[in-house]
Amino acid sequence: MSKEIPYKIYLEESELPKQWYNVRADMKNKPAPLLNPATHEPMTVDELSGVFCRELAEQELNTTDAYIDIPQEILDFYKMYRPAPLVRAYCLEKALGTPAKIYYKFEGNNTSGSHKLNSAIAQAYYAKKQGLKGVTTETGAGQWGTALSMACAYLGLDCKVYMVKVSYEQKPFRREVMRTYGADVTPSPSNTTNVGRAILEKFPGTTGSLGCAISEAVEVAVGTEGYRYVLGSVLSQVLLHQSIIGLETMAACDKYGIKPDTIIGCAGGGSNLGGLISPFMGRKLRGEADYEFIAVEPASCPSLTRGKYAYDFCDTGMVCPLAKMYTLGSGFIPSANHAGGLRYHGMSSVVSQLYDDGLITARSVEQTSVFAAAEQFARVEGILPAPESSHAIRVAIDEALKCKETGEEKTILFGLTGTGYFDMVAYQKYNDHEMSDYIPTDEEIAKSLANLPKF
Amino acid sequence: MSKEIPYKIYLEESELPKQWYNVRADMKNKPAPLLNPATHEPMTVDELSGVFCRELAEQELNTTDAYIDIPQEILDFYKMYRPAPLVRAYCLEKALGTPAKIYYKFEGNNTSGSHKLNSAIAQAYYAKKQGLKGVTTETGAGQWGTALSMACAYLGLDCKVYMVKVSYEQKPFRREVMRTYGADVTPSPSNTTNVGRAILEKFPGTTGSLGCAISEAVEVAVGTEGYRYVLGSVLSQVLLHQSIIGLETMAACDKYGIKPDTIIGCAGGGSNLGGLISPFMGRKLRGEADYEFIAVEPASCPSLTRGKYAYDFCDTGMVCPLAKMYTLGSGFIPSANHAGGLRYHGMSSVVSQLYDDGLITARSVEQTSVFAAAEQFARVEGILPAPESSHAIRVAIDEALKCKETGEEKTILFGLTGTGYFDMVAYQKYNDHEMSDYIPTDEEIAKSLANLPKF
Repeated sequence: MSKEIPYKIYLEESELPKQWYNVRADMKNKPAPLLNPATHEPMTVDELSGVFCRELAEQELNTTDAYIDIPQEILDFYKMYRPAPLVRAYCLEKALGTPAKIYYKFEGNNTSGSHKLNSAIAQAYYAKKQGLKGVTTETGAGQWGTALSMACAYLGLDCKVYMVKVSYEQKPFRREVMRTYGADVTPSPSNTTNVGRAILEKFPGTTGSLGCAISEAVEVAVGTEGYRYVLGSVLSQVLLHQSIIGLETMAACDKYGIKPDTIIGCAGGGSNLGGLISPFMGRKLRGEADYEFIAVEPASCPSLTRGKYAYDFCDTGMVCPLAKMYTLGSGFIPSANHAGGLRYHGMSSVVSQLYDDGLITARSVEQTSVFAAAEQFARVEGILPAPESSHAIRVAIDEALKCKETGEEKTILFGLTGTGYFDMVAYQKYNDHEMSDYIPTDEEIAKSLANLPKF
Repeated sequence: MSKEIPYKIYLEESELPKQWYNVRADMKNKPAPLLNPATHEPMTVDELSGVFCRELAEQELNTTDAYIDIPQEILDFYKMYRPAPLVRAYCLEKALGTPAKIYYKFEGNNTSGSHKLNSAIAQAYYAKKQGLKGVTTETGAGQWGTALSMACAYLGLDCKVYMVKVSYEQKPFRREVMRTYGADVTPSPSNTTNVGRAILEKFPGTTGSLGCAISEAVEVAVGTEGYRYVLGSVLSQVLLHQSIIGLETMAACDKYGIKPDTIIGCAGGGSNLGGLISPFMGRKLRGEADYEFIAVEPASCPSLTRGKYAYDFCDTGMVCPLAKMYTLGSGFIPSANHAGGLRYHGMSSVVSQLYDDGLITARSVEQTSVFAAAEQFARVEGILPAPESSHAIRVAIDEALKCKETGEEKTILFGLTGTGYFDMVAYQKYNDHEMSDYIPTDEEIAKSLANLPKF
C-alpha cells in the first residue's frame, strides 16, 4: 500500500514504539562478551553493577530478549521531542538531479541537537530509580553531555561531564548549555583524576580523546558514593535505547509503503548507526527483507575500515572492561578533526560483529568533502547539519549521484543525527578554506595496535 | 468535539493553510497609512516600489483582502520545516502545579531558529519573481538575517545583511551560519554607508540598533541596481506572512477542540505577535469568539507600555516612510540588553492600532526574570528558548501561577518563537549572576520623543 509521500512524516503519538528492540536476540553470531580486565572472564551483572546501575548492567548483558518494554516515564519524556520526522529530501533530489528517492530520519529537533537524548533519559531514569545521587560521563562533540544534562535536570539528578578538550575549546557555548541544565563540565584530560594527570604528563599538549574522557568519568563514578558512570555510545544498552530511531523509521516506512534499498549512518561509537539499522537488520537476519547497510566513518579515525577486530580497552586509561571490537587501539588519539563525536578509537561490539559477518559495509570519508556535502545539504534542505551527521550525507549524496549515472531509482535512507549550531568554528574554517584533511599513516595505526591487550 | 491532547500536535501536510490571513480587512479602524516623509501624503504602490519589490508593496497597502493565496513555491518551501508543532506543556504545568492548560506554538525547528523564515521566503520569492539580483536587510538577534540567507540560498539570490553591532559581537557564530548560506554580513553602524558614518561620528561607542541597521540596508538597496530592501518585522506585509503561525495554531486548536482564553506573544516589531494572534483577532473582530491578547516587551525597550502613538520614522536615519505606531522615538537606542530581536523603538502599525483600540493588552518584563523563566522552561520542557521568546514564557508562567492561586482552569497559549542556541553569551551572564536589568528613565524617553517628526 503506497500513499503520496509528504515532505515530512510524523507518526501519531499512539503509533510510537513502546518497546526497544534488541538486535542481539536475532544475531546468530552474538557479539563477544565484555571481559573483566583482570581475570579475562566474561563480566557478570554483579561486576558491571559497580560501574553502571543494575538495570542497565542487565540490559548490557541481555542477548536473548528481542523486545524490552520502555518504562512509562521514559515514554512520557520521549513525547516531549519525539516522534522525530522521517523527511523525504525532495529538494536535495531535485538539486542533484537524481532518480534516487532520498529519505532521512532527523534526530536534531531537541536541545541536545542529536539522537543522544534517547539513551540519556533511559540511563538517567534507571539511575534515579536505583536511588542514586548522580552520574558521571564523558562527551566529545558535546551532544551527549548536553543530552545527559537535560535528562538529569528533568529528573533532579546531579551530572558531572568530562568534555574532550578540543571540543571544549571549539565549542565554548556547549558548556553554557550544559550549565544552564545544571551540569558540572570539566575539560579532559584534567588534573581532577589520576588518569587525567598521567595522560597530561605523558602528552602535555594533547587535545584529548573520548577514550581518555571516559577513563576520567569512570574513575570519578567509582570513587564517589551514590554515583555511577553512563556512556553515550559503544555499549549494547545504548544501541538498545537508540533502536527507537529505527523502530520509528520502520513504522513510518511501513505506513507509507517505503522500502529502503540502502541505509546509511555515520559511525563513531556506533550508537546512531546501530539504533537506526537495528530493526531493519532484524528483518534481514530473520530473512524477511534485504537491505544494504553502510557505516560511514571519518578518514582520520577509521576503526572499521582500517582497524583490527580484537579485544581492546574501551578507554585510554584501561579502567573499563575489555570489549571485542574493531579498534585502532585504545591509545590512538585522532587528529583534531571537527567531528568530535566520531573521534573514538573503537566501535560498538554489536556493529563490529555485524560488520565482521559481512552484514554491514563501511566507508571512510575526508572532512573537507564532508563539509562540502553539509553546505550543499544546508542550502537546499534548510537544516544545518552536525559534522558527524554530514558523514552520512556525503555518502548518501555519492550514492544518489551514482543513481544519476545508472538511472537506478534506488531508495536511500540515512540518519541525520543532529544539527551543527555549535560547530560554527568548524564551519568557519571550511568557509575560510582553512580546513585540511588528515589520514593516519599505516605506521601510526600499526604502532597503536601493537599495544592491544595480549592474552 | 474534544479529543485526548497529545504532547505535540502536528497538522497533516494536507491540512496546512494555503492562504495568508490579512487582519486589516476585518479591522474597523484601519492602521494609519505610511506617509511619504517629504510630502506627508500616503505612500503609493509606485513610491514603495523603489524600496520594496512591487508585489510586496501591494501587500503592504492592501487593507481589504482578508485572504491572499500563498504561491505554490512558497508552500513547497514551507513544507521543508512546517507544520510547526502546537505543544501541550504538560511538564511545565506539572512543575508549576497549576490547573491552567498551557500550550505553545513552537517555531524554532528550523535553522534560522525562529519564525522569521515564514516571511523571509515570501519576500525572497517575490524579489526573485521580479527578476532582482539580490536583497539587503538588517538583523538584530540574527534570526531574521539567517532566515533571509536561507531563503536566498534556496532561490539563488544575493543577500547583504547589516547586523546590529551588539548582536554581531555577542553572536559570532550567527555570522558563520549566514556565511554558510552565502550571505555578506556587516556590523552596523558601519563605514559602508552615509547613514552609518554619520551615526558613528555622533555616537562613536554605539552598540547599534535595529533602526540604524535598517537605514544602512535601505541606503544600499536604493543605491544598488537590481536590489531591493526587505524587513523582518514591523511591516504589514510581514504580519501577513506570519499569519501562517496563527492559522496553523487555530487549525490545530479547532481540530482538538482547544479554546484558548489568553494568547501571549513577545513583541519587538510585532511580527510574531501579529502573526500568532491575527486569525484569532479576526474571530474577535467578527464577534465569533473572544480572547485576551497580551503583548510582552522588554522593560528596556517598552514601546507599547511607555511609548507614544504617533507618526515616526521607522529607522534612525529617517530614510524610510513615516509610520503611525507606538514609538519611543526613532533616535531611541536601547541599552545593550540581550533580546536583540526586541530592541526596536517602534511597533507594527497593525499591532499599534489594535492596542490603541483596546483589543490587545501589553506588559513589560525585566530580563533577569525573563532568563529565570527561560531556565525553568528549558529544564522541564527540554527546549532552550531564545531570550525574545522567553518574554512570552515569563508572562505565561505568571498567568499560570495566578491560576494556581485562583484555581481557574484557564487555557493559556503562547508563541515560542525560537531557540537560544546562539544566545549562550547571554545565558552565561545569567548563569554567572552577571546580568542586570535596565529600565530607561522617563526623562530619557521624553527626550527621545521630543524629536518625533512634526506636522
